[in-house]
Amino acid sequence: MVHETAFPIRTFHTDSFGHVNNAKYLELLEEARWQYAEDNGLMKLLTRDNLGFIIIDMRLRFRDEVVEGDRIVVSTQLLTLGSGSGEVEQLVRKDGQRKIALKSLFHFILVDRETRTPAAIEGDIRELLLGVIAKKS
Amino acid sequence: MVHETAFPIRTFHTDSFGHVNNAKYLELLEEARWQYAEDNGLMKLLTRDNLGFIIIDMRLRFRDEVVEGDRIVVSTQLLTLGSGSGEVEQLVRKDGQRKIALKSLFHFILVDRETRTPAAIEGDIRELLLGVIAKKS
Amino acid sequence: MVHETAFPIRTFHTDSFGHVNNAKYLELLEEARWQYAEDNGLMKLLTRDNLGFIIIDMRLRFRDEVVEGDRIVVSTQLLTLGSGSGEVEQLVRKDGQRKIALKSLFHFILVDRETRTPAAIEGDIRELLLGVIAKKS
Amino acid sequence: MVHETAFPIRTFHTDSFGHVNNAKYLELLEEARWQYAEDNGLMKLLTRDNLGFIIIDMRLRFRDEVVEGDRIVVSTQLLTLGSGSGEVEQLVRKDGQRKIALKSLFHFILVDRETRTPAAIEGDIRELLLGVIAKKS
Repeated sequence: MVHETAFPIRTFHTDSFGHVNNAKYLELLEEARWQYAEDNGLMKLLTRDNLGFIIIDMRLRFRDEVVEGDRIVVSTQLLTLGSGSGEVEQLVRKDGQRKIALKSLFHFILVDRETRTPAAIEGDIRELLLGVIAKKS
Repeated sequence: MVHETAFPIRTFHTDSFGHVNNAKYLELLEEARWQYAEDNGLMKLLTRDNLGFIIIDMRLRFRDEVVEGDRIVVSTQLLTLGSGSGEVEQLVRKDGQRKIALKSLFHFILVDRETRTPAAIEGDIRELLLGVIAKKS
Repeated sequence: MVHETAFPIRTFHTDSFGHVNNAKYLELLEEARWQYAEDNGLMKLLTRDNLGFIIIDMRLRFRDEVVEGDRIVVSTQLLTLGSGSGEVEQLVRKDGQRKIALKSLFHFILVDRETRTPAAIEGDIRELLLGVIAKKS
Repeated sequence: MVHETAFPIRTFHTDSFGHVNNAKYLELLEEARWQYAEDNGLMKLLTRDNLGFIIIDMRLRFRDEVVEGDRIVVSTQLLTLGSGSGEVEQLVRKDGQRKIALKSLFHFILVDRETRTPAAIEGDIRELLLGVIAKKS
């Protein structure tokens, strides 16, 4: 299941190079991941169990500049799932274009927000994630 | 006592209007207030008592644009002190200029970070603040 | 005409005090103003004429903390309009509550983005703004 | 040549997980790269020629959480240099610790800020960068 979130790019997303700054990009990608988690029901389970996903590794390749006035579509997809971690891919395209403006991969772990220690991805959370993970063709 | 903090303005501080964005400005002003609290010893007392200052009202007047490559000097000064609140003025000038680029006033209260409730400004914290408050001429 | 924009509050909107940080708040309010300008047709006119609104004065009063998991509704309304400037009020409520969490007023001017000089608010831009300004009761 | 920049971590650098948010991290790393470019004289040459470095790929591995009150030291080092691109490594340690809290690699290209097209890294800019590049042992 690929989730799509659209964002209009405003002046405050861009820096004096005229393009979306790296740091702002990460916020837009994080917001898209949250919307993904809301839409597929994950957020409710995380809140119920006081769990959270934390990024431990990320790689971003900027292929095309995104500027003020652009409208971007972020495609978010769970690629792999381990016992306590997983990988989410996020691709950014300008609205109506096939060309990828940004390709990114986020490696996450699940943590208990109370104890701040890693937690196993199990039970209904695991079930839900297995249901949305990218199917191998 | 007026405290001064200098910041070089980078591309990531500015937006596609080419000037420092309001939101970024607030972070620079907050950083200047923290440095003020570090330099006058206040930070140590706040950490000891798990207290924090929270802004409840702020007013900012932008008189001159600040752009990439500028170096700004933030002058921070405690103006008034009540039993549980106070006012800090922050003025921004471009390095070497007398003209004020930004005039701002922050009204704060002291809160207990554990209970998240207002706390009285008393004891050695009060003493310290009375020592640094702007003297009436 | 009052325009409403809703935002879910994420971890990245909040700081280690656990509430929405001032700087992040300004970005949410700015995004709400942009959506207002998109929805009422103003954005198209500004882009056509390469004009932009710049904030010259703002006042914010924080009455209630907004924390992760809250959903806020920003009400944006044009209050006054002068020959080259105006005032926009933005109120924030938590979803479903009448209590105001944040009250703010932004004083703006219109500028030519090419020459970076003030511009008169006239023609169809003026007409549009007069159509959406808050009616006195 | 390894360049070091220290930052105290404030409440506004951290999110409601209590640690430095990814997006804020990128701003601190970018500020460290700017200070590096100022200290070694690169900034002056870039400004003279209206050139800028743009990140086209970045990888970050978060090994240890950084929280409010920490003081971090960012070590910045040019690792490789090509005809129009290069790689900068940035390591973050908590003050006084040897353990690496964050390991990152930024791949950059040089661009002409006027034409927004890639530029060759040549002349005195190339000379300067060859002088600061990490020596192979």
